[in-house]
Amino acid sequence: MTSSPVQILFVLGGARSGKSRYAQGRAEALSRSRVYIATAQPFDAEMQERIACHQADRGAGWQTIEAPLKLPEAITVHSGPDRVVLVDCLTLWASNLLLAEEDAEAATDRLVDAIRSARGPVVLVANEVGLGIVPDNALARRFRDIAGRINQATAAAAHECVAVLAGLPLVLKHPA
Amino acid sequence: MTSSPVQILFVLGGARSGKSRYAQGRAEALSRSRVYIATAQPFDAEMQERIACHQADRGAGWQTIEAPLKLPEAITVHSGPDRVVLVDCLTLWASNLLLAEEDAEAATDRLVDAIRSARGPVVLVANEVGLGIVPDNALARRFRDIAGRINQATAAAAHECVAVLAGLPLVLKHPA
Amino acid sequence: MTSSPVQILFVLGGARSGKSRYAQGRAEALSRSRVYIATAQPFDAEMQERIACHQADRGAGWQTIEAPLKLPEAITVHSGPDRVVLVDCLTLWASNLLLAEEDAEAATDRLVDAIRSARGPVVLVANEVGLGIVPDNALARRFRDIAGRINQATAAAAHECVAVLAGLPLVLKHPA
Repeated sequence: MTSSPVQILFVLGGARSGKSRYAQGRAEALSRSRVYIATAQPFDAEMQERIACHQADRGAGWQTIEAPLKLPEAITVHSGPDRVVLVDCLTLWASNLLLAEEDAEAATDRLVDAIRSARGPVVLVANEVGLGIVPDNALARRFRDIAGRINQATAAAAHECVAVLAGLPLVLKHPA
Repeated sequence: MTSSPVQILFVLGGARSGKSRYAQGRAEALSRSRVYIATAQPFDAEMQERIACHQADRGAGWQTIEAPLKLPEAITVHSGPDRVVLVDCLTLWASNLLLAEEDAEAATDRLVDAIRSARGPVVLVANEVGLGIVPDNALARRFRDIAGRINQATAAAAHECVAVLAGLPLVLKHPA
Repeated sequence: MTSSPVQILFVLGGARSGKSRYAQGRAEALSRSRVYIATAQPFDAEMQERIACHQADRGAGWQTIEAPLKLPEAITVHSGPDRVVLVDCLTLWASNLLLAEEDAEAATDRLVDAIRSARGPVVLVANEVGLGIVPDNALARRFRDIAGRINQATAAAAHECVAVLAGLPLVLKHPA
């Protein structure tokens, strides 16, 4: 990690695609010092259960940080040369930005700056949500636009990009 | 087929992706003795039409078995060393399990056991349904979870896994 | 362009996947004489904004033609040996056909004829809309069927087919 460039890995997948598990496995191979940055907010029982389920999957050895909105700042603070940061996921962050009426474009720029200047490897997970029927309501369409733009910006900044389908990785961008 | 391991092929695709046609072509290349296991239930006119349309596509030389719920059992009974079994599709089966309030996790385990111990080649078709916007209603979210877990388990058990997009195959897992 | 076969490139992607930008880049590399065939109809403010946004992305050097329904005819008229035609997108065309109660199957056949007999390179953009939950309403399901069949027919006729995910191209069909 000392002289090679900091690694940015972007993992993209659908719901229940196995993307989180894949990303976790890759992160664990990068360092024994691990920070998990969660963007989920446990608003209701269903979300609480999903969060608990992911936490159980991760097991020990992970420090968990919650950053529903200030994700770029959390990446900057918690990244380090001998530590891997796993962000799960960018799409819930997009949703949080929208609900908080934040400027999503400016936030995306800050995210890209944060991962590019991170002091250690960063693994980022996102949902692909743009491959179904156009949603009826305007808010869902705005969400889809924001999430898609974040995915494009992150993929452009990443050294490696992997789509996960039915638990199987498909490389979209090979590490140089 | 005598000494080589039984072949499990998993074909994943969206609606109107050409996945059924691709799976059928692959199945027909495997054996002249062909069993089609349908999980669809002709509840209404639209579904009846879709089933009839698929049947016409298959043409002669196929024996059709209906197994809306007891799919693992049907695979075990109908597979054989000189016969190919085509299952279309796992996602309707997931929907049937949910509506019948069956234990989807136990059923998935039985499915994996059945395809692993099948006495001949098995081709399985499934829909990918997790790449759109998060559905509003909780039942659709549960369905998406069940379908996604079935897809992951089947892909893990399969020797070969192919995604079909606009009629074109994309290999996700190469046969060893 | 004189003796080699006319090139048909099909670009498939989700909402906000970067498919239009990718297709435009490929089209610009093919010729300096460029025709953009738009299928969008500026019914409301949101659609007007999206159209204006795409237009600004394209910049100068493009002639814009609107063909919400008579797309095959527009391709035939505007294609030429030293000119590239970019169609964006087939999925809005599918939607327009459905709303105008046109025979979608016959229109798809005319589209395939038009791109096969085009006198110059044609780049076609489409949305993949079949990878989410099955829509509740019958019209959306019909739309999904029509869009999917158009995608399959176009992919079959194309010399090259590329899926775009998070701005990254994934080759589905290599040019011979």
